[in-house]
Amino acid sequence: MSAAPARQRSLHHGNINPRVKDAKYAVRGELAVKAESIRRELEKDPSSYPFDHVIFANIGNPQQLDQKPITFFRQVLSLVQNPDLLDDSNAEVVKKLYPEDALERAKWLLKAVKSVGAYSHSQGAPALRGSVAKYIEKRDGYPADPESIFLTAGASAGVSTLLNVMARDPKTGVMIPIPQYPLYTATLALLNARPVEYYLEEPSHWSTNTTALYDLHAKAESEGTDVRCICVINPGNPTGASLPYKSIEDIITFAAEKKLVIMADEVYQTNVFIGEFVSFKKVLRDLQANVPGKYDNVELASFHSTSKGMVGECGQRGGYFELVGFDPEVVQEIYKFVSISLCPPVGGQCLVEMMTNPPKEGEPSYDLYKKEYDDIYNGLKTRAYALHEAFKNMEGVESQDPQGAMYIFPTITIPRKAVEAAKKDGKQPDEFYSMELLKATGVCVVPGSGFGQKEGTWHFRTTFLAPGTDWVGRIVDFHKQFMDKYRD
Amino acid sequence: MSAAPARQRSLHHGNINPRVKDAKYAVRGELAVKAESIRRELEKDPSSYPFDHVIFANIGNPQQLDQKPITFFRQVLSLVQNPDLLDDSNAEVVKKLYPEDALERAKWLLKAVKSVGAYSHSQGAPALRGSVAKYIEKRDGYPADPESIFLTAGASAGVSTLLNVMARDPKTGVMIPIPQYPLYTATLALLNARPVEYYLEEPSHWSTNTTALYDLHAKAESEGTDVRCICVINPGNPTGASLPYKSIEDIITFAAEKKLVIMADEVYQTNVFIGEFVSFKKVLRDLQANVPGKYDNVELASFHSTSKGMVGECGQRGGYFELVGFDPEVVQEIYKFVSISLCPPVGGQCLVEMMTNPPKEGEPSYDLYKKEYDDIYNGLKTRAYALHEAFKNMEGVESQDPQGAMYIFPTITIPRKAVEAAKKDGKQPDEFYSMELLKATGVCVVPGSGFGQKEGTWHFRTTFLAPGTDWVGRIVDFHKQFMDKYRD
Repeated sequence: MSAAPARQRSLHHGNINPRVKDAKYAVRGELAVKAESIRRELEKDPSSYPFDHVIFANIGNPQQLDQKPITFFRQVLSLVQNPDLLDDSNAEVVKKLYPEDALERAKWLLKAVKSVGAYSHSQGAPALRGSVAKYIEKRDGYPADPESIFLTAGASAGVSTLLNVMARDPKTGVMIPIPQYPLYTATLALLNARPVEYYLEEPSHWSTNTTALYDLHAKAESEGTDVRCICVINPGNPTGASLPYKSIEDIITFAAEKKLVIMADEVYQTNVFIGEFVSFKKVLRDLQANVPGKYDNVELASFHSTSKGMVGECGQRGGYFELVGFDPEVVQEIYKFVSISLCPPVGGQCLVEMMTNPPKEGEPSYDLYKKEYDDIYNGLKTRAYALHEAFKNMEGVESQDPQGAMYIFPTITIPRKAVEAAKKDGKQPDEFYSMELLKATGVCVVPGSGFGQKEGTWHFRTTFLAPGTDWVGRIVDFHKQFMDKYRD
Repeated sequence: MSAAPARQRSLHHGNINPRVKDAKYAVRGELAVKAESIRRELEKDPSSYPFDHVIFANIGNPQQLDQKPITFFRQVLSLVQNPDLLDDSNAEVVKKLYPEDALERAKWLLKAVKSVGAYSHSQGAPALRGSVAKYIEKRDGYPADPESIFLTAGASAGVSTLLNVMARDPKTGVMIPIPQYPLYTATLALLNARPVEYYLEEPSHWSTNTTALYDLHAKAESEGTDVRCICVINPGNPTGASLPYKSIEDIITFAAEKKLVIMADEVYQTNVFIGEFVSFKKVLRDLQANVPGKYDNVELASFHSTSKGMVGECGQRGGYFELVGFDPEVVQEIYKFVSISLCPPVGGQCLVEMMTNPPKEGEPSYDLYKKEYDDIYNGLKTRAYALHEAFKNMEGVESQDPQGAMYIFPTITIPRKAVEAAKKDGKQPDEFYSMELLKATGVCVVPGSGFGQKEGTWHFRTTFLAPGTDWVGRIVDFHKQFMDKYRD
C-alpha cells in the first residue's frame, strides 16, 4: 500500500476572511516582531548588538518598563483572589501585611461580585458600576447612571463593541482622526466599514479643524458614505495633544448638527501635562444646559481604562464605557452583544472600581497612594519634557509640546538618500528609519505610517515610559549618525 | 427664543448592524433577565415569591453557586497580584499563610510575565504556553508545540477568533451540532456566515450520525454553501454527552475527506462521569500514525478553558486553543487578529498555567489540591445522577445518561393545552414551561429553543451545579402541578 498524497488544507492565505487580512495593527507589527527577536538574540549572546537590552517604546505598557503598580490596588486584588486571608482565624497575621482599608475594600468588593471566579452581570457587577458613576459625577459635576455604564476588558473591547453595533453595511462611515491609534482602522476593516479620515493640524498642537470636518462630511456623504459617528482620542494617541474646551464644544456641535454618534476615547484623561482635561460628557451637559433642544439626544460613548494613567495595569484588562443619549433599544442590543462574551474579567472590574474610587484623605492607605500616584505622574512629565527637548534639538525633527497621553509623535525630515535606501529595502521611509533606530539603539518605536500621516511627512511614535534618560541620548546619537550617512 | 426641536438620534433599532440584531444568545436571554428581576424583588420583599432565592441553573457558573475555588490556584494568584508578599522582609509572616510551593510558583510566574499588570505577548506569555504544551503531551501521548498554542480570554474568545478568520463571505458555511451552545450561531450571525446544522441523535446519547454528515455536506455544497469547518462540542453542551473514540475517528475522517477545519470545543474535558475523555488531537495523531497521507494537514483547533472542570473560575477569563496542521500564513493572520485586542488577561493566563500544571504528588499543596478536586468532581457527579433520576421519574420527561459536562438536557412532552397557553402568551412551549418553572420554583433554566432542537420536540437545559437536592424536589413538584393543570 502506498501512502495517499498529503491532504490539502482547507484554509490558506488566499481564502481566509479578506477583512482580517486587510486589518493592520502596527503597534504589534513588523518592528515589534523584530524587537522581540533581537531581545531573544541578546539573551543568548549579549554582544550581538551594540546595546544590552531592547526598550519597548512601541506600546503604552508601563509595567513592562518597570512602572510599579499602586500598592493599595494590588493589596486589594490579592485579597479578593484569596478570601481566606479575610477569615477571622488569619486576622492577627494578616493585619501585619494589609492596612485596614484594603481589608475593608476587599470585603466590600467580594460582597459585590461574590467571587472573582464567578461570571458577573455581562455589563459588569452593578455595585462596581455605581463607583464609576460617582467618579464621573465628581469629575464633571453632572449625574451619571450606573445602568448606562458598561465595564469592559480594557477600552479596546468597548470600542470594538460600539463599532460592531453601528456598522450596518459597507457604506457605514466612521470619522477618525489621522493620525490615529490603529485599533480604529483595524476594527473598521474587520467590519467592512469605511474610515472617513480627518487630518489633525500638526503645527497647532494637532488641533481639530472644525470647518474641515463639515467639508469632509459633505464630501463623504456625496460619495455615498453613510457617516454615522465621529471618533475623538483625547488626550491624543499618537499625538500627545490635549483638546481645549472650545474644540470639544465645536466637535459636539458638529456631531449634533450632522446627527453623528461621538466616540470619545478618553483613556489618557489623567495623563495631562499642560492645561486640564475636560470630558466630552461635561461639555455636552454644559451645552444641553445652555442651548435647549439642539443638543438633546446627542449620542456620546466615552471610554476609559485601567491600562493607562497612573494605574498602568494593562495586563488586568479593565475598562468601561458610558453611554449618553442612546436609544434604549440600541442599548439593549449592545447588552446582548457583550453578553455573548459573558463578562469582562472580574479582577479587572474590581480594579476599575478602585481606579474610580481610590483611597481618600484620612484613610490609612491615602498617603502612600498619593505619593505613588504623584511620583508616577511627575516621572512621566519629566521624561516627556526631556524627550521633547531632545527631539527639538535634533536636525530636521519637530515635536509638538507634550500636552498629554504617553506619547510623542515627532516629524522627521528624511533625506532623499535615505528615502532611496528605504525604497531599495521595500520599506516606507519612516519604517526604514525606525528599523535602523531599533538595530542601532534597541529602542523600538512605531513608524508614523502605522497611524496615518499627511502624505510626504514622516513620523514615529515613542512612549516616554522607559526609566532614565540614557536611552534618549542613544536616540540623539543614532539620529546624528543617520543624518551624517544620508544627508543630501 | 424658543427651544429647537429635540435632535433625532443617529442610531435606532431600525438602522444598526442587522447582524447584531440577528445574533441570539439565550443563556443570558429573557429568562435570565426575568430571573435577575425576581432576585431583586426578593431582596426587597422576601415574601413576593413562593421561594426564598433564585437558582441560576441557566449558566455554567460554579462559583456563583458556591463552588469553592481550588486553594492553591487562589493562593498563587494572590501572590502574583501582591509581589510585596514575596519580599524577604515579609518571609516570616507570609510562610504562616502560604505553602512553599505556592510561593515558588508565584515567583516562577512573575519571572515569566514580569507583572500581571503588563501586556503580555498577544498569544500569551511564552513560558506559560510551555506548561500548556506539556499538559497536552501528557494527556495525549503526542508532542505539542508552545508556538501553536494561543492563550485566550476564556474559550469563547478563541472560538470567535477562529470563526472570524475563516468567514470569507456570506457563503461560508460552518457545520454545527444541534443542539449547540449558542456562541456558535451567535458568532456566525455576527459574521454573516451560514450555520450548517447537523442534528445529534438524542435516543443514542446524543451521538453523531456520520452518514448524515456526508449527506448534509453534499446538500449544503449543492446549495452553494462553501462549507469550511465542522464544530464539535465534546463533552456536549447542552447535551451532556461524551463522544466515544470511534465517533471522533469518524468525524476526523469526514473532515479529512471533505477538507474541513475541525473546531473541537473541549472545555468540559475533565467533566466526564461515564467512560473516558479522548481528545480530537490524540485521535488525529493516532490516525496520522496509522494511515499515511490521508490525515496529513488536517486542521484542528481545540479549545479549553479555566471556567469549567473542577477549576470553575469563569470570572478570571482564562483559556487556550491549540492549532494543529494550520498553514503558517494563516497562523500569522490569527496572531495579527488577536494582537488587535492586545492580550488576554494576564491573571487568567497564570491560571491556565496552573490548571495545566497543578501541584504534583509529594509537593506541599498536593494533598489539599487532590481532596478539593475530588470533592468537586464527586459532588458534580452525585448531583448529575440525582437530577437525572428525578427527570427519569417525571411524567413525559426523558433524560439521557449524564455522561459529562455540567448539564442535563431532558426532553419534555408538553401537553396540547399548555402549547395553546404558550401560544396565547407569545412564547414557544419550552419557553413557556421554563418561565412557569422559574416563577414557581426560582430555578432558572434555558429553554431548548435557545440551543436548537428537532422540530416538535421540547427541552430545557439545566446545570447541576446548585448545592443540595432540595431544588430538584421543587422541580419535581412543579412539573406535577404543571401536568395536572394542562394534561390532555
